[in-house]
Amino acid sequence: MKVLGKMTGDLDNLRVVLVATRNPLNIGAAARAMSNFGVRCLRVVNPYEKAFREARSAVGAAGLLAKAEQYEGVAEAVADCRLVVGTTAVGGRDLQHRLHGLVQGGRQIKRQLRSAPVALLFGSERYGLSNEELSHCHWLMRIPTREEHGSMNLGQAVAVCLYEVVRGQKKAAAKAAPGKKEETPATSRELERLTQAMLNVLHDSGYIKPRAVAAEEKLRRLVWRMELNSNDAEVWLGMLRQIAWKLGASKRTNA
Amino acid sequence: MKVLGKMTGDLDNLRVVLVATRNPLNIGAAARAMSNFGVRCLRVVNPYEKAFREARSAVGAAGLLAKAEQYEGVAEAVADCRLVVGTTAVGGRDLQHRLHGLVQGGRQIKRQLRSAPVALLFGSERYGLSNEELSHCHWLMRIPTREEHGSMNLGQAVAVCLYEVVRGQKKAAAKAAPGKKEETPATSRELERLTQAMLNVLHDSGYIKPRAVAAEEKLRRLVWRMELNSNDAEVWLGMLRQIAWKLGASKRTNA
Repeated sequence: MKVLGKMTGDLDNLRVVLVATRNPLNIGAAARAMSNFGVRCLRVVNPYEKAFREARSAVGAAGLLAKAEQYEGVAEAVADCRLVVGTTAVGGRDLQHRLHGLVQGGRQIKRQLRSAPVALLFGSERYGLSNEELSHCHWLMRIPTREEHGSMNLGQAVAVCLYEVVRGQKKAAAKAAPGKKEETPATSRELERLTQAMLNVLHDSGYIKPRAVAAEEKLRRLVWRMELNSNDAEVWLGMLRQIAWKLGASKRTNA
Repeated sequence: MKVLGKMTGDLDNLRVVLVATRNPLNIGAAARAMSNFGVRCLRVVNPYEKAFREARSAVGAAGLLAKAEQYEGVAEAVADCRLVVGTTAVGGRDLQHRLHGLVQGGRQIKRQLRSAPVALLFGSERYGLSNEELSHCHWLMRIPTREEHGSMNLGQAVAVCLYEVVRGQKKAAAKAAPGKKEETPATSRELERLTQAMLNVLHDSGYIKPRAVAAEEKLRRLVWRMELNSNDAEVWLGMLRQIAWKLGASKRTNA
């Protein structure tokens, strides 16, 4: 997508940092979401060695997984970043940090990405980010999950956060997205032609009685409400003409 | 979250429909994301039996997985829904449907959820939604992934879509003009009845040749695109029945 092409510069400033991830499938899923949304820099901190190795050798692993950088601790992994954001499932846990919703947090991240590297941290599946790990964060961001079941799957959390960062990045550009062919609404002339053809068929079939005065208006409103595009209006008209012909043909035969 | 508490009524109108899903982990992941975001109704269409069984028996499977409803086809799974939305990874594939971005589509879904059931369809991991399956959709929604790697993991796609539907739900509700009566869109069942009646008339009139295979799908898409409300659907059905009767009557006379 062109939209993303334009943002590549910004998104290249984003580092997704997975801390102490256990499950190779989750590392792979995070990498896939990154690739989907055009984020390329993956950093892993102290992963379970086996998980990281397996994820890297998985079939279809994104190139970015091969290029993932490995660090001993969070400090080293975020050293070049000017904004470090932790993600958390639970709202009230750590009151020592400012907590932003995803929309608000995403907005700040987008702003920062324009000029400087930003790290987005995801903790281990089991424990999230530890207090030590959290201490490297400027603030925390929370996905609006239910209180009763807040903890998200890691790969899904990464996908949702990246979507929010990518979303609306270039609203104007999105409007001009290629492949999004504009529909041409039918003209009133086309709709009127359709209405008359329909009226014709309804008379012939006996649905409308010969002296039903308001029928035409009602039918017109019905047709207009469909908000047909030009192509569809033509298809409907073709159908109606065939039906009209058939109804007429039988009348002629019977006469 | 309080926000979610208030929306429960709305979200109970949302049906997540997984079509021909292969991987039990993906069914499980979809269920987990649903639980995270407070969406409860899961429907599976023609899943690989083994996958569905495994997902159900997985440790920690959400209660909603146990209550998931199984259907033979998309038509049955969406019969009670007044809006059916397909998700797609690729922008240009199916130009027969209107395509909305996630934000715009999410907004429409939220509006509809206030008053009526909405189905959100996810196709198989390998092939997405088939043309027949797509023909039951009013429009399609696309997650803004990169063109070069558009295809998302199923569980992640579900998470991102549900996040978008949940996000800002409160705002949408606030905007709902009180007292302004919303139109009730036709259910899929009503639209299907209309489609079949139309098909009938088109056959009898000779518009559709006896062995035209794709005709039904094309017609279904055409009917769905009109986004009829329930009253209008009934009026059209009445008209078609009268036309069908007339066409049949003349056939009988001629015989």
